[in-house]
Amino acid sequence: MKRQGISVSDGIAIGEALVITGQEPDIQKDMQGSVQKEVQSFETALENSRKEIQNIRNQSAADIGEEQAKIFDAHLSILEDPEIVDGVKEMIASEEVSAAYALDRKVTELLQLFETIDNEYLKERAQDLKDVGRRVIRHLLGVKDEILTDMKEGTILVAHDLAPSYTAQVDRRKVRGIITATGGRTSHAAIMARALGIPAVVGVKDIIKHIQPGETIGLDGFTGEVFLKLDNDQFQMLREKQQKNQARQDKLKKFIGKKTMTKDGLVRELAANIAAPEEAELALENDAEGIGLFRTEFLYMNRTELPDEEEQFEAYKAVLEKMGDRPVIIRTLDIGGDKNVTYLDFPEELNPFLGFRAIRYCLEHPELFKVQLRALLRASTYGNLKIMYPMVSNLEEVRAANALLEEAKQELSSESISFSSNIESGIMIETPAAAIISDQLAKNVDFFSIGTNDLIQYTMAADRLNEHVAHLYDPFHPGVLRLIKKVIDAAHQEGIWVGMCGELAGEEHLIPLFLGMGLDEFSMNPGNILQSREIISKWSMSEARELVQEVLNLTSSSEVKKRLDFFK
Amino acid sequence: MKRQGISVSDGIAIGEALVITGQEPDIQKDMQGSVQKEVQSFETALENSRKEIQNIRNQSAADIGEEQAKIFDAHLSILEDPEIVDGVKEMIASEEVSAAYALDRKVTELLQLFETIDNEYLKERAQDLKDVGRRVIRHLLGVKDEILTDMKEGTILVAHDLAPSYTAQVDRRKVRGIITATGGRTSHAAIMARALGIPAVVGVKDIIKHIQPGETIGLDGFTGEVFLKLDNDQFQMLREKQQKNQARQDKLKKFIGKKTMTKDGLVRELAANIAAPEEAELALENDAEGIGLFRTEFLYMNRTELPDEEEQFEAYKAVLEKMGDRPVIIRTLDIGGDKNVTYLDFPEELNPFLGFRAIRYCLEHPELFKVQLRALLRASTYGNLKIMYPMVSNLEEVRAANALLEEAKQELSSESISFSSNIESGIMIETPAAAIISDQLAKNVDFFSIGTNDLIQYTMAADRLNEHVAHLYDPFHPGVLRLIKKVIDAAHQEGIWVGMCGELAGEEHLIPLFLGMGLDEFSMNPGNILQSREIISKWSMSEARELVQEVLNLTSSSEVKKRLDFFK
Repeated sequence: MKRQGISVSDGIAIGEALVITGQEPDIQKDMQGSVQKEVQSFETALENSRKEIQNIRNQSAADIGEEQAKIFDAHLSILEDPEIVDGVKEMIASEEVSAAYALDRKVTELLQLFETIDNEYLKERAQDLKDVGRRVIRHLLGVKDEILTDMKEGTILVAHDLAPSYTAQVDRRKVRGIITATGGRTSHAAIMARALGIPAVVGVKDIIKHIQPGETIGLDGFTGEVFLKLDNDQFQMLREKQQKNQARQDKLKKFIGKKTMTKDGLVRELAANIAAPEEAELALENDAEGIGLFRTEFLYMNRTELPDEEEQFEAYKAVLEKMGDRPVIIRTLDIGGDKNVTYLDFPEELNPFLGFRAIRYCLEHPELFKVQLRALLRASTYGNLKIMYPMVSNLEEVRAANALLEEAKQELSSESISFSSNIESGIMIETPAAAIISDQLAKNVDFFSIGTNDLIQYTMAADRLNEHVAHLYDPFHPGVLRLIKKVIDAAHQEGIWVGMCGELAGEEHLIPLFLGMGLDEFSMNPGNILQSREIISKWSMSEARELVQEVLNLTSSSEVKKRLDFFK
Repeated sequence: MKRQGISVSDGIAIGEALVITGQEPDIQKDMQGSVQKEVQSFETALENSRKEIQNIRNQSAADIGEEQAKIFDAHLSILEDPEIVDGVKEMIASEEVSAAYALDRKVTELLQLFETIDNEYLKERAQDLKDVGRRVIRHLLGVKDEILTDMKEGTILVAHDLAPSYTAQVDRRKVRGIITATGGRTSHAAIMARALGIPAVVGVKDIIKHIQPGETIGLDGFTGEVFLKLDNDQFQMLREKQQKNQARQDKLKKFIGKKTMTKDGLVRELAANIAAPEEAELALENDAEGIGLFRTEFLYMNRTELPDEEEQFEAYKAVLEKMGDRPVIIRTLDIGGDKNVTYLDFPEELNPFLGFRAIRYCLEHPELFKVQLRALLRASTYGNLKIMYPMVSNLEEVRAANALLEEAKQELSSESISFSSNIESGIMIETPAAAIISDQLAKNVDFFSIGTNDLIQYTMAADRLNEHVAHLYDPFHPGVLRLIKKVIDAAHQEGIWVGMCGELAGEEHLIPLFLGMGLDEFSMNPGNILQSREIISKWSMSEARELVQEVLNLTSSSEVKKRLDFFK
């Protein structure tokens, strides 16, 4: 049985399913000894929980980063909340019930209270409260944490969603893969999986219902497929793919430390797309020559209030320091579309992909945008920063964004805060309008980065997440390829460099074509970098240019695919 | 107080608000005389209602068309439904209640039954039943129809929605304007208002709550504005606009019967966009030289099942006959996007404008599409038919659609049914992809018609119905204008003609520009045709071409607007 999810971390995994059901242990109402003894047990459990959380917090900070570790500070503060601690003690005394029962009832009462209020902040607090409540009850009952008990080598974790406190305990030597029923590319579990290099598929609806704990399952982190009741053919197929992938990875290692160069010696740049500071490590492991796209949405999503300047500064600085001299292109906030931020009170939209998002939103909220620009400028002294604006569709937007950047610079200067004096600022080319007037835009920016995901969906008028028009979301459409060529030509005409940071930049069949068109920088999933370096090494520019001539004369996507050996 | 709605029929109106609340008359439970007398009253009321409906039906057929009149056949059949007629009589006899009370209860019972079933067909039947029930009760109580009682000259009808039985009774000498709270351009009230030449604004939310019956209100059918508690300034403003419009209309009449010709004698074609057969009359009144876009969605929407071949054939034939030699471009079904057809079970989509619509849907449902193609072919012998496919984005779609057309032709031939042998088939250019590969598409079709509404929204990645990005839905964006130029050039390069049927074709500031680009046909709202003929008469081709050169060198929408005298 095969189920389809969203691939968020590359690789193949076969292993034993460990299903995290979130089941509750049995709680007895009656107390075993005296009230005093029960209160004492409660205090011991609180203390042990505190130590445990503190340990996870420290380990998490070391393994993943300080950012992720902060989640546990909220957990620690719950352990000290007088309403809970004193409330439970009172209940034990007045009703002569067990500490576990009293705590469980207290937590349930609070959760019910939270539920009556439709507020995103309280919903997240409720999750924390539940998490901490369970932990203390486990200590009271002497029951071990589900995940810690059963974990053995060769495990594939399966969960509805993985709470931060679980992922922080994931041991990469034991866990081969992660599958969750909810989430997307930017969900917590997805970011963690990529940072830890564990293959992962998320958004596999109802997966928990269909899985037997302990059964052997497989997942393909390249395609997003999950295999249940794994039969022998599937097992062999996955195993082969895994071995092939491993062999391929080993072979590609020889490209680490090499320049990205065509047969005839032209040097290009291969950069990585990352969605969180933790992923910079993976970029370096794959020898990225820079970060071509650092998405900053992680700072704004899955939380309850805007990140302040300091928090943003720390995140940008971390990546810039890690990457040293290598360029780091940080994209300003690209919310809206399919990325909603609940606390910002976004409008309901009939067609969010054609709506109020990215630079459109930021220019209407300069107070919010300026915080990010200031943080970026302050971080600029720690590395090689370039700033990039998303979803530009006309020249006015570029001018408005640069004017705000200028304002931020002047503010910092007047506050005697230093920033780098030579920060390039560029734009993503992802609306057809921007592509068509790229010659005019090129006169006003330092670089372009072609965002193929959006560019294709707008050009084809086909939502890339809509299965009914999936066949029209077509990277090989002659119109899409012409538009990309046009943008590259326009950039070079004006003497600026042009990169690409959509999924297409790492698409093996298209790399020679973009190379021939003159693309300067290819920014992709870190896992595709070494393979792309190999591909580029096999082509000369004259061969690549010839390919471009041929392909641009073709009239259909299937002809293009054929010419690019897509069907082999 | 000003409220914004959707303008669906041009013109200015100032008048007294007649609010159709749909309030029920008082019904007494007790009968006045004997059971026999009550049954007799009921039969008389049924008979009078029958005559009244028959009259409305006939008048409606004469004024508007046979198509619209059919609504009343359903009403007539309800009067003969034995469950209702016999049921009411039984209730009068067994419970000794008044006929009005018995009928009201019977109707209420049936409506409750209908409500338990979530079925679009039953919902419409419920509306008819309610309508007929009210009519018979009014006859029983001697109460006149709300709309017929209070109607005086200078009325502006205001309603939540206008039921077909109301609009059919609208007297164009008395009704100056129509405002409804619901609906869009293709709602029944909108089509009727255009056909009758009455200014109308629909989709004005909550309008009924904000209006005092009898108060003087104004509406601007050009802008979609509705003015309540009309103050003196607004009154003067509307009056002036109305007079100016009238004077302008009178002046433009001299262009009736004239050719559409530039100063230097180049002849172009001005055609009309229509959304229902009834609107062909209005096209002719405005001296349209053809129908550049006959939308066929009216056949599929606001009903409960697919129209059969015969019904479609009759509708197409009616327009073709009416237009005689003048070309009639009929666009195949363009559902999906914001035009949902409930009985077709469309998928829920996150971004319907980027979804499963128009030719995409039709090619996946050839059984449905072929019915339309057969009806079109059969109608072709009655006039000058051209067939047009909407939302094309690649060559494969054109080939697939033409293959189905070919199949339909062969079917008809084998059934010895005749059709015209020289029907042109063309496509709308409304996706950026189609515009970019228009040179390739032009080799495979007989004509293009540029659909600017969609082309702009996809090029700019801005939903034209989303107020938050309204400023980006920008017809004057240099990229949009370049794309249009590209399409016209590509068409002429391959020797085919190219028209435009979006709102832009009738935009006074852009007409000279499109003229200069070489556009062959301009298809628009019938009310804009004579003005456009005047504009074209004032330009020579060399002047228009010079304008194109200048405008295409500009870098922003505001510069373009300035050059086109938009701000005057």
